[in-house]
Amino acid sequence: MTHSNAPSAGSVGPLLVTGTIGIDTVETPSARADRVLGGSAAYFAAAASRLAPVRLVGVVGDDWPAQHRALLEGLHGVDLRGLETRAGGKTFAWGGKYLLNMNERETLFTELGVVADAPPQVPAAFADSGLLFLGNTHPAVQAGLLAQVPRAKLAVADTMDLWINVAHDELVHLLSKVDGIVLNDSEAAHLTGVRNAVSAGRRILGYGPTFAVVKKGEHGAVLVHRDGVAVVPAFPAEESMVVDPTGAGDTFAGGFMAHLARTGRTDFEALQQALSWGTVMASFTISAFSLEGVARATEADLARRYAEFARHARV
Amino acid sequence: MTHSNAPSAGSVGPLLVTGTIGIDTVETPSARADRVLGGSAAYFAAAASRLAPVRLVGVVGDDWPAQHRALLEGLHGVDLRGLETRAGGKTFAWGGKYLLNMNERETLFTELGVVADAPPQVPAAFADSGLLFLGNTHPAVQAGLLAQVPRAKLAVADTMDLWINVAHDELVHLLSKVDGIVLNDSEAAHLTGVRNAVSAGRRILGYGPTFAVVKKGEHGAVLVHRDGVAVVPAFPAEESMVVDPTGAGDTFAGGFMAHLARTGRTDFEALQQALSWGTVMASFTISAFSLEGVARATEADLARRYAEFARHARV
Repeated sequence: MTHSNAPSAGSVGPLLVTGTIGIDTVETPSARADRVLGGSAAYFAAAASRLAPVRLVGVVGDDWPAQHRALLEGLHGVDLRGLETRAGGKTFAWGGKYLLNMNERETLFTELGVVADAPPQVPAAFADSGLLFLGNTHPAVQAGLLAQVPRAKLAVADTMDLWINVAHDELVHLLSKVDGIVLNDSEAAHLTGVRNAVSAGRRILGYGPTFAVVKKGEHGAVLVHRDGVAVVPAFPAEESMVVDPTGAGDTFAGGFMAHLARTGRTDFEALQQALSWGTVMASFTISAFSLEGVARATEADLARRYAEFARHARV
Repeated sequence: MTHSNAPSAGSVGPLLVTGTIGIDTVETPSARADRVLGGSAAYFAAAASRLAPVRLVGVVGDDWPAQHRALLEGLHGVDLRGLETRAGGKTFAWGGKYLLNMNERETLFTELGVVADAPPQVPAAFADSGLLFLGNTHPAVQAGLLAQVPRAKLAVADTMDLWINVAHDELVHLLSKVDGIVLNDSEAAHLTGVRNAVSAGRRILGYGPTFAVVKKGEHGAVLVHRDGVAVVPAFPAEESMVVDPTGAGDTFAGGFMAHLARTGRTDFEALQQALSWGTVMASFTISAFSLEGVARATEADLARRYAEFARHARV
């Protein structure tokens, strides 16, 4: 699992993620974390880096806490040459509160800061990336970032309800350019008007991508691909194991994409196995605040959790 | 899969189901079925009989349609010696309507009829049954039926919200007598006060049983057992495949129990594999009204669907 020792995949090229770096404040019924490191790209990179090197493209303000930078820099295998610090800018900040069942949350505040200004640029050194994950932002921005990675063999985008509402046409255009999309079941239903996750995924393929991953939170995920359908339950976590669900979806995506980077494969079977790695990474994320769960797990913990999941979910 | 040709299991003994035989009227957004054969024992037996012989204990009124009897009698491997026809009684009848998303339903009417009177008796010829499934009814009635099958090596009960509300103590008593319970996620949450399906199942083991199967409908099921946890997604059915979800849970239980009867095993691994057979049977049930889906599937259809499910759900 140590990518430095892993056989060089080579056939798809390096993994790049674009997305937010954020300052998160999270309340749960039993605990609270103030101004901790968060954001889609941070969560993604923390998970992905456990399996394969990952390049990060994002932007922070000059208010970004030094200890957050130290945390990201401390992650083995995360290349931060695409992290721009914008003078005079404010870092993206988000506050949320989980309700008693830990499955519903309220957003308390969102301060876009630098994320509302010009998007980050992909450095020339990253232009040869072969696997691209476009974290959630305006689909026109995602399309601009995609154009900066012309050699991407597999480009996958995340999205959210907001863009389905206010940038529907740009999102549909983006879908005609990417190979895959990752979204929640409620977002898939919103985008397609179809509640059934498999049928919604199928409908999305009509917009152009080769596959759609529909995430169902505690109920797992469905992969609808031109070559088949795969379905995976979530890790059967007991209530006591769930500390903070924030970032579960982003680390799912990180584990998923990094498995492809590590194996050098992007076929249906590789994507199906990648679902399990996404599941394993998400199971660590929910067990602690911020990136801590996925970052502090040892190699042995990861291997054990994967084997445990395979045992639980064997059919 | 033809149980007549299957190696004799022997070590657990014959499978017996107790439950309702009903006359169902079902409306869906696109179709309607009037006064068709339904009821938990009918659905269970139709599914179970595809894998192993099954003995049915239930009661109908003398208004029971001859064509319903013919349908049940036409199922290979269902022993109807425990089906009592009560003179002057009315057969249990149920009417329900599915809403547009096929996941929510309204009960339009419930006419208990003979189900409200004295419960059926287990015939002496069935007293040697080794596997017992107690379909949903008052837990005191379930306990009475259990006492009539003294050699049961594995007794499993179904229940519902009504009994959690009005017969909580009797239900807790029943749980101390059975080996397993099968219930919906909302029922498990209601019974235990814990929403997380794994934790709720764990809590239920505290009442005595060796295992709990928490069903999550389109999201699959979780088995919480003293020896481990297993989780299975539902068959990834497209919207167009879902004609009528009625009976899915009962046929899930039928496939689950019949796999144990067929293999003669009741250990954790056998229960885990049994979840997949329950899933396969439920996938046929939802594809047609009444028992038709599970009854008309050929041996080849069953084997093909099982292989397809194993492919979709491989981790």
